Amino acid sequence: MKRLDTRDADFESAFASLLSGREQGQQEVARPVADILDHVRREGDTALCALTERFDRLAVTPEKLAFTAEEVEAARAQVAPALLDALELAAARIEAFHRAQMPQDLRYTDDVGMTLGLRWIPLDAAGLYVPGGKAAYPSSVLMNAIPARVAGVKRLAMCVPTPDGVINPLVLAAAHCAGVTEIYRVGGAQAVAAMAYGTDTIRPVDRIVGPGNAYVAEAKRQVFGHVGIDSIAGPSDVVVIADSGSDPRVIALDLLAQAEHDELAQSTLITPDTAFADAVTQAVEAELNVLTRKAIAGASWRDNGAVLIARDFNEAVELANRLAPEHLELMVDDPEALLPLVRHAGAVFLGRFCPEAVGDYVGGPNHVLPTSRTARFASGLAVFDFMKRTTFLSGGPDALRRIGPAAVALADAEGLEAHALSVSARLDALARNTPNT
Amino acid sequence: MKRLDTRDADFESAFASLLSGREQGQQEVARPVADILDHVRREGDTALCALTERFDRLAVTPEKLAFTAEEVEAARAQVAPALLDALELAAARIEAFHRAQMPQDLRYTDDVGMTLGLRWIPLDAAGLYVPGGKAAYPSSVLMNAIPARVAGVKRLAMCVPTPDGVINPLVLAAAHCAGVTEIYRVGGAQAVAAMAYGTDTIRPVDRIVGPGNAYVAEAKRQVFGHVGIDSIAGPSDVVVIADSGSDPRVIALDLLAQAEHDELAQSTLITPDTAFADAVTQAVEAELNVLTRKAIAGASWRDNGAVLIARDFNEAVELANRLAPEHLELMVDDPEALLPLVRHAGAVFLGRFCPEAVGDYVGGPNHVLPTSRTARFASGLAVFDFMKRTTFLSGGPDALRRIGPAAVALADAEGLEAHALSVSARLDALARNTPNT
Repeated sequence: MKRLDTRDADFESAFASLLSGREQGQQEVARPVADILDHVRREGDTALCALTERFDRLAVTPEKLAFTAEEVEAARAQVAPALLDALELAAARIEAFHRAQMPQDLRYTDDVGMTLGLRWIPLDAAGLYVPGGKAAYPSSVLMNAIPARVAGVKRLAMCVPTPDGVINPLVLAAAHCAGVTEIYRVGGAQAVAAMAYGTDTIRPVDRIVGPGNAYVAEAKRQVFGHVGIDSIAGPSDVVVIADSGSDPRVIALDLLAQAEHDELAQSTLITPDTAFADAVTQAVEAELNVLTRKAIAGASWRDNGAVLIARDFNEAVELANRLAPEHLELMVDDPEALLPLVRHAGAVFLGRFCPEAVGDYVGGPNHVLPTSRTARFASGLAVFDFMKRTTFLSGGPDALRRIGPAAVALADAEGLEAHALSVSARLDALARNTPNT
Repeated sequence: MKRLDTRDADFESAFASLLSGREQGQQEVARPVADILDHVRREGDTALCALTERFDRLAVTPEKLAFTAEEVEAARAQVAPALLDALELAAARIEAFHRAQMPQDLRYTDDVGMTLGLRWIPLDAAGLYVPGGKAAYPSSVLMNAIPARVAGVKRLAMCVPTPDGVINPLVLAAAHCAGVTEIYRVGGAQAVAAMAYGTDTIRPVDRIVGPGNAYVAEAKRQVFGHVGIDSIAGPSDVVVIADSGSDPRVIALDLLAQAEHDELAQSTLITPDTAFADAVTQAVEAELNVLTRKAIAGASWRDNGAVLIARDFNEAVELANRLAPEHLELMVDDPEALLPLVRHAGAVFLGRFCPEAVGDYVGGPNHVLPTSRTARFASGLAVFDFMKRTTFLSGGPDALRRIGPAAVALADAEGLEAHALSVSARLDALARNTPNT
């Protein structure tokens, strides 16, 4: 853990090291992934089944690739009712927030008589990748699937590997709850290939979202352009701005909730109060003795954790803006006063009783957020990721007379003769008063 | 040119060939581009000047990289007043449309007493790449820069190469008109590197947009993640749905306006009227005899052009949806009746007096649009590309009591103990009625 004070002479150089990327070990997978994509593209379901047998040790036929409604129901029956209730509460809140963010179409007629606007139109089909085994987070199924459904996407296909045939029932329950329409027991680059190019069993989708291992991430990179993809997530991070009004242990737990994800995760406390900083640091050490995930959380805190002493809260927020965190907690008396100062953060959590973990599950806003300081230019997952805009422009003879000559002048200046003629031929016809264009 | 009729038995297989990508010759530039990026990253302005001398045959010092206000003014003085007026008309209309599309922030308090919402925040800085020489289109400067300015981006840096010191005055005039704040005489992968990583002279930006050659496109791919980029544009295309109410020559010119861009451009006419299809085809041939860009337009029409005979306009729009064109013209009596049926198109032009060329320059909607059938999932350039969303969530003790337990249950189910503790420690404190959290 690094501890820095903005009044230290070497603060800037030490802070710069916090801004530099935490590199993930790059696996060299471009070639094997390209081979898998090619295999699925050529041989479709046959390839899918062969690759599933090879990688997941699961013998499967094309007819068995999709989970049946009965299998999904059986999985749901295995989940404790209280947990199903929690899933449903989460789903309802996520749906409400994403419904509230739905954009409006635009249409107006301007002073030259042209009617213009834009329409938001949902994608026809989206594909959701869900990792198998321990990395399967039911909450992520909700967070990826619900925005697509709210956006109006009709077909929502999900691929999840079932190594040795094992599936997490809560993942199927979450998919059911989120309105996923098709679920396939296939994973890895082969799943991405199937969703991008289609097979007899799995029809192609228009955009693929969801987290995955290095093979999945590389496969998404390679199919990008043919279909849309989401961004490739880096290690997670949180910045907690806090004063001494919170229990140091509670703030320590907030920092550790990030640290327990991954050794590369980064948790940063920013406070003007050095005594509180000491207390939180001690509390982190104390909790690290008892946490079940102490090996991961401890490595993350040791290697990537930071405590920054700021002069005041304005400076604290400015440091946070420079870190452009995925998550920002404002654990202070008047968090609303700081919110307008936040320019770069994926999601902000305001107030002592609103920690990030509430937002991770049941807050409503999406937990798929921009990592690695990309909050400078990127946004969390939203209904916008499952829609696209079509603009339109409409005008009659009068509008063409008023703005057409400028188009002709610019087309001529760019040396695009047919562009100019396409407009001037119409203007000529109007000048001749020809009934047809 | 391919002519297909939907009533032909082999229509589907012939149509499928229209859907397959027109591959651009892939230059192998990944390695030289990586070297250039590395060079600029290590040596900054020194590298920029050396590479500009090598590639653009222009000796330049760091102090001379930026155009001065006087140089921009001198360039503007070279442009004919009528052309400046046309630029300003275009800029005003583009600005008005992009201002109309600005999104609203969201904020509401829900039934459990949580306040949640999202804020749209402009990027701090955007970078605009503009090709040099013949590929420099002033209209593209407007289309890329104005949405950034309207979005609220404070710094708008533009890089344009000046091979042998030659600059297109209209490009500088357009940059001035669009509100670009910095212009640098540097191009290629080195310009992208400078905007992504920064040098002493060119500060880094958060997102880089604008068209470029294979080196520029590859450089954008390689810096992606460190900064945002726009999509890599493929060859352009148009679908024209027309009836016999238009002059066949006018429709032919619309098809050729697309074809004159590039041999790989694709122009497609869809009509239910076979006689009109014949007339347009003849008009295309006639115009190809006299167009200045007949070599390019002729190759495009011959290799990639298509005429599709549909049963009716509903089928015509359905074919257009499958082609997911960049541009769609509805040259029919009642284009508004067809617009709601359009699901996949970058931009739609309605009515006989509203050809694409009007929209390319002075319509208002953006002319940077999704190519290569990506309108299935992608959108044209807009203010949204220069903003990002920050969500927020705020709640007090009562809200935590109502939804906190569900978060604890889900965190436990996912095996994330610190997540659960971060919430349950607060709930425990509330249960104990402790004044601090």
